[in-house]
Amino acid sequence: MSSIDGFWAVVPCGGAGTRLWPLSRSGSPKFLHDLTGSGRTLLEQTHDRLAPLVEDRFLVVTGDAHSEAVRKQLTSLEESAVWAEPSARDSMAAIGLAAAVLERRGAEVMGSFAADHVIDDPQLFGETVRRAVAAAREGWLVTIGIEPTFASSAFGYIHQGEALPGLEGAHRVVEFVEKPSVPVAEEYVATGHFRWNAGMFVVRPTVLLDLLGERDPDFAATLRAIAADPTRLPELWETLPRIAIDHAVAEPAAAAGRVAVVPGAFGWDDVGDFDSLAGLIADRHQLAVLGDAGLLHTDGATGLVVPGSGRIVAVIGLDDVVVVDTPDALLVTTRDRAQDVKSVVAALKDKGRQDLT
Amino acid sequence: MSSIDGFWAVVPCGGAGTRLWPLSRSGSPKFLHDLTGSGRTLLEQTHDRLAPLVEDRFLVVTGDAHSEAVRKQLTSLEESAVWAEPSARDSMAAIGLAAAVLERRGAEVMGSFAADHVIDDPQLFGETVRRAVAAAREGWLVTIGIEPTFASSAFGYIHQGEALPGLEGAHRVVEFVEKPSVPVAEEYVATGHFRWNAGMFVVRPTVLLDLLGERDPDFAATLRAIAADPTRLPELWETLPRIAIDHAVAEPAAAAGRVAVVPGAFGWDDVGDFDSLAGLIADRHQLAVLGDAGLLHTDGATGLVVPGSGRIVAVIGLDDVVVVDTPDALLVTTRDRAQDVKSVVAALKDKGRQDLT
Repeated sequence: MSSIDGFWAVVPCGGAGTRLWPLSRSGSPKFLHDLTGSGRTLLEQTHDRLAPLVEDRFLVVTGDAHSEAVRKQLTSLEESAVWAEPSARDSMAAIGLAAAVLERRGAEVMGSFAADHVIDDPQLFGETVRRAVAAAREGWLVTIGIEPTFASSAFGYIHQGEALPGLEGAHRVVEFVEKPSVPVAEEYVATGHFRWNAGMFVVRPTVLLDLLGERDPDFAATLRAIAADPTRLPELWETLPRIAIDHAVAEPAAAAGRVAVVPGAFGWDDVGDFDSLAGLIADRHQLAVLGDAGLLHTDGATGLVVPGSGRIVAVIGLDDVVVVDTPDALLVTTRDRAQDVKSVVAALKDKGRQDLT
Repeated sequence: MSSIDGFWAVVPCGGAGTRLWPLSRSGSPKFLHDLTGSGRTLLEQTHDRLAPLVEDRFLVVTGDAHSEAVRKQLTSLEESAVWAEPSARDSMAAIGLAAAVLERRGAEVMGSFAADHVIDDPQLFGETVRRAVAAAREGWLVTIGIEPTFASSAFGYIHQGEALPGLEGAHRVVEFVEKPSVPVAEEYVATGHFRWNAGMFVVRPTVLLDLLGERDPDFAATLRAIAADPTRLPELWETLPRIAIDHAVAEPAAAAGRVAVVPGAFGWDDVGDFDSLAGLIADRHQLAVLGDAGLLHTDGATGLVVPGSGRIVAVIGLDDVVVVDTPDALLVTTRDRAQDVKSVVAALKDKGRQDLT
């Protein structure tokens, strides 16, 4: 398989992943970690998955604090492939800046893929992206919709409409819907017409910027001004609205009938919390271990253990437990309560313990 | 209250407390630790409780490996008050050696009290010991029987018989019984005639040695030989039988009608495992914390947490959990499984990790 002509990968690296504390920290967010025990970090895996499709046509957008770490992990990238945001201004600013830069570089199509997701079938992923690029070349804002494997209440959904003639696998998007309750999710999945929204967008840079400009001309103009003169980035960046690309562009464009979805049948997970991580590493009734299993002594326990400080960890008689042992902080919780880990991070921040968050 | 004339306290310091791993180690057994957060170790608390009764008339018997640590904690004791066993040979050898030494020193009565028990009312304890000493002066082997507060299956019981005329609070012992099942324990407690066996013996040294000598003359003679010439300790010690004082003396003497029990109404616990320790520190539906509570972040958790490494410990959504964080080992289990902690210690020994046990 050859790479896709004129196609660039945009990789926004943002988000601290506070629900994966104490593994993930604001100073060392989850995309920098090997969370699946594969030997590669989530960022490296994202690069590995996309490189066959784009060769070296990458544009990574990350926070100032992480640009050094990103460059260290992605050594094959040129200096100009990594853009550092002066501050976090949500996904529209990050992806929009990439669009403006790539528009000037003459990219035909860009695809934006988060740096911290796990995908289990790179081959099928690649084929799906090719279909999405084909639709994007025709002017669509294309999203890749993950075929749901269960009625998750943790993800937003894409309501898939009629097939688009002449574009293999592509369908019109009826609407994007927010994270539903489990009963509503069950109804969605039963219809066969709903896909998980993985935040993957494939689009011509100019199409994306013009869709943005229709609703917020200043926003699009500022992004293009930065791309035209990158020395103005620090000055102009702080004037950009903080808004997610979903609200700024994807949802209104879907309402206008201008968004397509290409279903993806590959396994996907956003590794949102330790429950999700445990499920990626082992079956429900097993004990998932991330790290040196030789440090672990266990008897009658299931869940997830991360022996991450070099110390012996003994876990006896707990089901669905989550134990994360790091050199300066220890977390003990359950898979059911995995979402509540962020409250610890909030409490530590309140106490002025930025060193731990 | 003055001290009790001619009365000496014997404190055998033995037992690693493997069910309290990783707090308690063979190199640092539980009596050396402040397990209740009182600011005093269990050994120091034992000393504090007995000192009003005996002033400086202490005799501590401990393992060679711990005699230095014992002396450091009990700085008021003279050199001759601490005897180091060349090897662990169970309680008859340890307490019997103390009896032989005290017989030569002219002690009238000795009382043996483990170094690692917790007692909540030192005043009532003292009054109980005074009654026991009074009975011991009359030639009885006296045990203090704890009034049971629930039908525990973790302790042996003392079956209490008729009152002994003229000896306040003292009763004849019908028999000692082994740890019962819970239903049997319930029957015991319902009768009102059974007490917990806390292993506390009060007796004239000569009476104890003579009771031993009736069944094993060599054992008693060897103990007296060591006391007569302590330089022979290393040579003679290894010839002593390994047997508990209960089997060697207390049970046969009870069968012969020569043992008395004085009931003790003070709160008592042998801190046998983390379930017991949790119960000592907090109520069942609370979270007991042993150590710096400022290191702990908790939400919806009950049980016991020991933040003992200086690290932040976050515990979310677990009932009756036990989390023990030390610099080189971490334990996560439940109060129900507290007895199984010893299996971790056994497994670590099998792996040659004596450094951790």
